[in-house]
Amino acid sequence: MIRVTLWYEYAQESGVLRREFVRAGISDQDFANFSAAVQNTSAHIRAVYPAGLMGTIRDFLQQSPDFQVTMSDLYQPEYGLSEELLNQTDVLVWWSHIFQDAIPDAVAGRIVERVQRGMGFICLHSGHKSKPFMWLLGSSGTLKWREGDFCRVWTVSPAHPIAAGVPEYFELDEEEMYGEPFDIARPDDIVFASWFSGGELFRSGCTWTRGYGKIFYFQPGHETCPAYHNPHVQRILTNAIRWAAPTIWREQMDCPRIAQPPEQNRLRS
Amino acid sequence: MIRVTLWYEYAQESGVLRREFVRAGISDQDFANFSAAVQNTSAHIRAVYPAGLMGTIRDFLQQSPDFQVTMSDLYQPEYGLSEELLNQTDVLVWWSHIFQDAIPDAVAGRIVERVQRGMGFICLHSGHKSKPFMWLLGSSGTLKWREGDFCRVWTVSPAHPIAAGVPEYFELDEEEMYGEPFDIARPDDIVFASWFSGGELFRSGCTWTRGYGKIFYFQPGHETCPAYHNPHVQRILTNAIRWAAPTIWREQMDCPRIAQPPEQNRLRS
Amino acid sequence: MIRVTLWYEYAQESGVLRREFVRAGISDQDFANFSAAVQNTSAHIRAVYPAGLMGTIRDFLQQSPDFQVTMSDLYQPEYGLSEELLNQTDVLVWWSHIFQDAIPDAVAGRIVERVQRGMGFICLHSGHKSKPFMWLLGSSGTLKWREGDFCRVWTVSPAHPIAAGVPEYFELDEEEMYGEPFDIARPDDIVFASWFSGGELFRSGCTWTRGYGKIFYFQPGHETCPAYHNPHVQRILTNAIRWAAPTIWREQMDCPRIAQPPEQNRLRS
Amino acid sequence: MIRVTLWYEYAQESGVLRREFVRAGISDQDFANFSAAVQNTSAHIRAVYPAGLMGTIRDFLQQSPDFQVTMSDLYQPEYGLSEELLNQTDVLVWWSHIFQDAIPDAVAGRIVERVQRGMGFICLHSGHKSKPFMWLLGSSGTLKWREGDFCRVWTVSPAHPIAAGVPEYFELDEEEMYGEPFDIARPDDIVFASWFSGGELFRSGCTWTRGYGKIFYFQPGHETCPAYHNPHVQRILTNAIRWAAPTIWREQMDCPRIAQPPEQNRLRS
Repeated sequence: MIRVTLWYEYAQESGVLRREFVRAGISDQDFANFSAAVQNTSAHIRAVYPAGLMGTIRDFLQQSPDFQVTMSDLYQPEYGLSEELLNQTDVLVWWSHIFQDAIPDAVAGRIVERVQRGMGFICLHSGHKSKPFMWLLGSSGTLKWREGDFCRVWTVSPAHPIAAGVPEYFELDEEEMYGEPFDIARPDDIVFASWFSGGELFRSGCTWTRGYGKIFYFQPGHETCPAYHNPHVQRILTNAIRWAAPTIWREQMDCPRIAQPPEQNRLRS
Repeated sequence: MIRVTLWYEYAQESGVLRREFVRAGISDQDFANFSAAVQNTSAHIRAVYPAGLMGTIRDFLQQSPDFQVTMSDLYQPEYGLSEELLNQTDVLVWWSHIFQDAIPDAVAGRIVERVQRGMGFICLHSGHKSKPFMWLLGSSGTLKWREGDFCRVWTVSPAHPIAAGVPEYFELDEEEMYGEPFDIARPDDIVFASWFSGGELFRSGCTWTRGYGKIFYFQPGHETCPAYHNPHVQRILTNAIRWAAPTIWREQMDCPRIAQPPEQNRLRS
Repeated sequence: MIRVTLWYEYAQESGVLRREFVRAGISDQDFANFSAAVQNTSAHIRAVYPAGLMGTIRDFLQQSPDFQVTMSDLYQPEYGLSEELLNQTDVLVWWSHIFQDAIPDAVAGRIVERVQRGMGFICLHSGHKSKPFMWLLGSSGTLKWREGDFCRVWTVSPAHPIAAGVPEYFELDEEEMYGEPFDIARPDDIVFASWFSGGELFRSGCTWTRGYGKIFYFQPGHETCPAYHNPHVQRILTNAIRWAAPTIWREQMDCPRIAQPPEQNRLRS
Repeated sequence: MIRVTLWYEYAQESGVLRREFVRAGISDQDFANFSAAVQNTSAHIRAVYPAGLMGTIRDFLQQSPDFQVTMSDLYQPEYGLSEELLNQTDVLVWWSHIFQDAIPDAVAGRIVERVQRGMGFICLHSGHKSKPFMWLLGSSGTLKWREGDFCRVWTVSPAHPIAAGVPEYFELDEEEMYGEPFDIARPDDIVFASWFSGGELFRSGCTWTRGYGKIFYFQPGHETCPAYHNPHVQRILTNAIRWAAPTIWREQMDCPRIAQPPEQNRLRS
């Protein structure tokens, strides 16, 4: 059984903006404008995802009998990322966007350490600027963007487990364009790359290893585009969770002093 | 001209412990004991390095006419790591040990960003647990250790620029043992690996790239061992600085919206 | 069921030297001397491996119910590497030594292509100079060597599937020393590294990917040393076979012309 | 001074087909048809490249005062790849197409070894199916293709020396499409990636290291398209030659026996 935790911001999806997550000192007028924009986005999201964006992901993941899925979000206690929850998570699926900075450093650091101990981390779309992703890579995660392109996702590494059952390419009629250069640490594998009708391209499915943990970034998933309804996207995320599930956990995170050299043990015996 | 900044803690070297860098709430007795230990180490360092550990590095680096060397340390304003200094640094050489946590996150974050913009970062010995190193790698930097081994450093990548002029191996009569597993992101290149008489081995010279910047970690350099007097170590650090010197800087660190698709430009023209 | 083929030279093991595999034009006297040396080695091998070197590997592999093990060797028709056999092999375990050049290029090329199509390739010990290994890596496979060292194998990547159940280190009382620099293409992962009592070290367990196939090189296994009796070595080889077993095969090896551009298909529809 | 050798087939360019390079047993009629096709292509090449394809490359490379450029081709003695020529070559620039198989294995093997010793190897366009390229990578080099697309080349690694002075993207009005999946060993760096108007994308500028040598593959350069007149392409090839020029050569290619262990030397002294 793979314990999958789906974490997302929930703000845009719910249409409810909470002042404590917005930058300090925002004026009432700016907050009201921001709230209105979020409510507007919420309506668009619900039109595309009646079950919610992350609810849609949950629904198709729950069809995998080996997944035990838990949902969590920023509006829950401890930002929805308590030590207890992380300690019971094998693979964390992450979607963040407008509140990347609202996660305290200590909470982001928890995730980094949990990955180093073995937890899989699947970072979706705009999470490229989230603290856990940038910190695990040591990279800024910057890229170019534009809303409203047609997108063709190419399978670059057909033998990678994350590409199992995925065709040579598939198409998303509308997706946000993310373009190179994408500032990321050199990936272990580039599994997918995307072609955008506006003329850009992007390394859209990449893997890394950090400590005992595996990381997968996947580009499609703009909140008002239907990527998570696409069966190939669903297959990719399902594959990625199985690929990233840990088989071994790291217990100790210290630097032990080895008082007795192995050679001394050998030569004595 | 390569602007090289040498940064180190200075505490052990000077024998002066400053209370503000020690963990809060330390008792007077514990502080006094810690101070005594630091004074004791200082005497050992000065016996091995009359010019100081970092002063020794400065002295041999200054023999390279293309290097402009500046020294800085934790006891200077802004932890010796001001924005101004970093902005005038091409390659930062880093040695830290007992005060890894004393560097505020914001200051460590400055270094990470400066590397992503192009600054070279040479991390020495116990700096494997420094914030900038761990954050750039997304790794815990953990390892095994023991003082007092003989060490033989092997050149694993003889054609790497950092190995230019370095023999197939050289020996350090006494060096602190660092042993595998070393928790680091997959290196670009393993230039050196070390054999320790107690029976361990270690990937002792590794490179990475982050953003526009280059990173080199080098294991030898325990504060009471004479590694920095070794001509091969001196050659390696000199090579590493030239290798890590940036040829291009990144100016913008944002994610630009590309309103006008390249294809639109093309098809209009 | 993983179809495992164990291929080895058999010459030293059997003590029988066949003239057709020895370099052309060898004098009768030289051939006789070579034969005597091979017979001598054979006795040493049989003393250490009563079931033969590869027979010992077969015996412990057959304890894995998911392995279907076939043995083959140079003295069989088509060098024991017929198209038919390779086409029924999921993972090829390879041990070669004195007859690296006796394998015709066309036969070595078959193995390379079969790996590109998905077959796993486990290269043991002196196989570092075999044609399939050198050709898959594009590297010369050169190294230093000396018989008769004590060897301590360190686990460098404890979370790698090939290291599952392997301790932080294990010891081989006698093994041939292989030393750096090892001329290999940059490995995907360095799973093990070895410390030798004579003072050298070696990246002794490395992985690569080529096409759809996975490759693992493992250093221990000199013909007159008992490494293959060691339970950790047995565990490593068992793990490596499971890791290298293909999940997907490549059918076509051509460069197809795509007459109909995907964009044309899309824009028409 | 960097000794640059430009090697190409010359057949299509000259319009002269030589029977000895065509597959054995070809009928007179087939040979006549093939010859006519080649003559036809020759006219197209000359229309685009009055100085010839490789002559155009020579002309812009000769503007670099640190390059000493030699041209060679398949129709010269020893396939234009004599031991003598290779021994005086620092960087080999390679363009091959219709006669990939005409190069004998022994000659291709010479190039592989020369790269392992330090020679830079720049493989252009259809050379992806040449023996030296496939053998250095251990890969089949397969891809998809189609003539006649618009191509936009994106800089993926702006800080790489090969990208120095190259804009974020540049456009080629007509170029042969090469599409993923491209069967190559994991590159060290992906410097460029290309977007094709027909809907495909491609990792079009990749680097590898083999032994002491550096390798760069660059996709643009179909024989009847004017890529080599493009100033950005010219800049890239010029940069690539400087990047690939060796700073150190490997002299010995053997596996030396180290009779005297380093530890014995140490403990005796």
